[in-house]
Amino acid sequence: MELQFLGTSSGTPTRTRNVAGLALRTAGGWVLVDCGEGTQHRILRTNHSPHDLRAIFITHLHGDHCYGLPGLLASAGLLNRTAPLAIVGPAPLERYVRGVMETTALQLPYPVEFIDVEDAARDGLLSDLAVSATPLSHRIPSYAYGFTEKAVERRLDADRLAAAGVPRGPLWGALQAGNEVTLPDGRAIRPADVLQPPRRPRRIVIAGDNDTPALLADAVRDAHVLVHEATYTEAILAKVGPGPQHSSALRVARFAREAAIPNLVLTHFSPRYQDTAGPLTLADIEAEARTEYTGNLFLARDLARHALDREGMLSESPRSQAPGA
Amino acid sequence: MELQFLGTSSGTPTRTRNVAGLALRTAGGWVLVDCGEGTQHRILRTNHSPHDLRAIFITHLHGDHCYGLPGLLASAGLLNRTAPLAIVGPAPLERYVRGVMETTALQLPYPVEFIDVEDAARDGLLSDLAVSATPLSHRIPSYAYGFTEKAVERRLDADRLAAAGVPRGPLWGALQAGNEVTLPDGRAIRPADVLQPPRRPRRIVIAGDNDTPALLADAVRDAHVLVHEATYTEAILAKVGPGPQHSSALRVARFAREAAIPNLVLTHFSPRYQDTAGPLTLADIEAEARTEYTGNLFLARDLARHALDREGMLSESPRSQAPGA
Repeated sequence: MELQFLGTSSGTPTRTRNVAGLALRTAGGWVLVDCGEGTQHRILRTNHSPHDLRAIFITHLHGDHCYGLPGLLASAGLLNRTAPLAIVGPAPLERYVRGVMETTALQLPYPVEFIDVEDAARDGLLSDLAVSATPLSHRIPSYAYGFTEKAVERRLDADRLAAAGVPRGPLWGALQAGNEVTLPDGRAIRPADVLQPPRRPRRIVIAGDNDTPALLADAVRDAHVLVHEATYTEAILAKVGPGPQHSSALRVARFAREAAIPNLVLTHFSPRYQDTAGPLTLADIEAEARTEYTGNLFLARDLARHALDREGMLSESPRSQAPGA
Repeated sequence: MELQFLGTSSGTPTRTRNVAGLALRTAGGWVLVDCGEGTQHRILRTNHSPHDLRAIFITHLHGDHCYGLPGLLASAGLLNRTAPLAIVGPAPLERYVRGVMETTALQLPYPVEFIDVEDAARDGLLSDLAVSATPLSHRIPSYAYGFTEKAVERRLDADRLAAAGVPRGPLWGALQAGNEVTLPDGRAIRPADVLQPPRRPRRIVIAGDNDTPALLADAVRDAHVLVHEATYTEAILAKVGPGPQHSSALRVARFAREAAIPNLVLTHFSPRYQDTAGPLTLADIEAEARTEYTGNLFLARDLARHALDREGMLSESPRSQAPGA
């Protein structure tokens, strides 16, 4: 499973950070979580394409999370996409998109299916991922989406195979594929007899804007990764006041520690924080988070890719290009 | 007067070209013509700001000309703009923008005034520029906007001053400022007696998508500059067919020659044309235009700036940075 950040700024884009967008790729393809203005421009700099996008999940309907949707849909049409596209999100998502389509004469050569966030967990939305949605606390309805592998690979246990006397060869392959086999001596061997205990399915939770991380307590119980906004440090949050209903790095980090989440990715930074030099920098966000959280911490950067391996460890992949906005 | 292209691609952005957007700056400030998705990202790379934007003119409501509008309005709000902003365009412009604002909870700290394109010429919209709007031919209503200087500077004629016996000094300044003066010998001198004939006010016509350049015959009669789409070459236009209702380089160039327009800027290129290397490049567009047009020809590039001097000559300013999408 791989995450690629398409935007990591809050409210407005900066010269190095776009507004919200996050690609999640699995062997089954890729899905997009949030689609701020310019997301399709970012996609041009990745290996993803609007053509093979499986579904879009919108956490909430603030512009910095959804103003790129009409343009992305239009471009997928110009690329001659014909496969249906599901868009999941809270109301009035469909009214927003249909209104834009109608007033701007946008016709698409593929069907769009709008799915209310409350139905995100319905069976079959994604073939290889189970989806969950958790309501958060923000100025408008906002949600976190959880993505959990539906199946994990079968791994043979060499010791158990030896103990059972299964000869190396085609029988191993049949057991690995999940089939019962019969040995030359007539004994039946079931896969469960010789497989390792299955690993925990990987689970990633990607949260929308939210001022109360504890609302995610249940959702992250088996999660390997939480992606959460940390719009401000505590000092700036105190200055801004609670009105915008965002989280500080401290609050998210404390929650992640208490919930024992092994990998935490912070994103959605206020444009007042510079990347490197300035009165306020992302180092402030990071330092504040580290006072609480001692797990595997990342501050998201545009176009950065993070791979989650089968052991549940997240690591940032080497970058292929500069982020220029 | 200066033009700066914010996007020069048609339909979808490419890695080097954004969709439509064009800044026109005069001593009085700047206006924006069209606002495709990502226009605010391009603005971040210029000296313009959504904060001091005077007005926005939308040629037509296709997404590649207007999907950046909600985000630009939102960002101007986050920058604490308080000055009213006029947005001019064809219906259903207001319904499009208000629909997005309502469904995405966008509240702006400044008033937006929607002006129907038919009222674009109304007095006082821009203090220093007279505006005209000309209907074009496209799949949906599309317009060209003309911007003409309302006033030209007074220039004293040294020969006439000498002939009239006006002594060099404060009297020259008073005449230049438009005041009648009395000479020491009692003679009254009016500014008109000693001024050079006024130069022709500069006029720039910026067209939206259009398959019939001749519709601009009246609008360009006194224009120094025409900015017009040249989406394809004739060969590609023949392949695509007339359905999209765009112009070829040949047709625009022929019109510009026949109308004796001194400066022609082509833009809105199909993404199939590469900047430099490829089976189809912008050199094809340029070569085709030059078979008809022998005036001052430019192919627009993102972030390129073109200054129109008082003699009506357009020239491209040296670039300050690379266009990276």
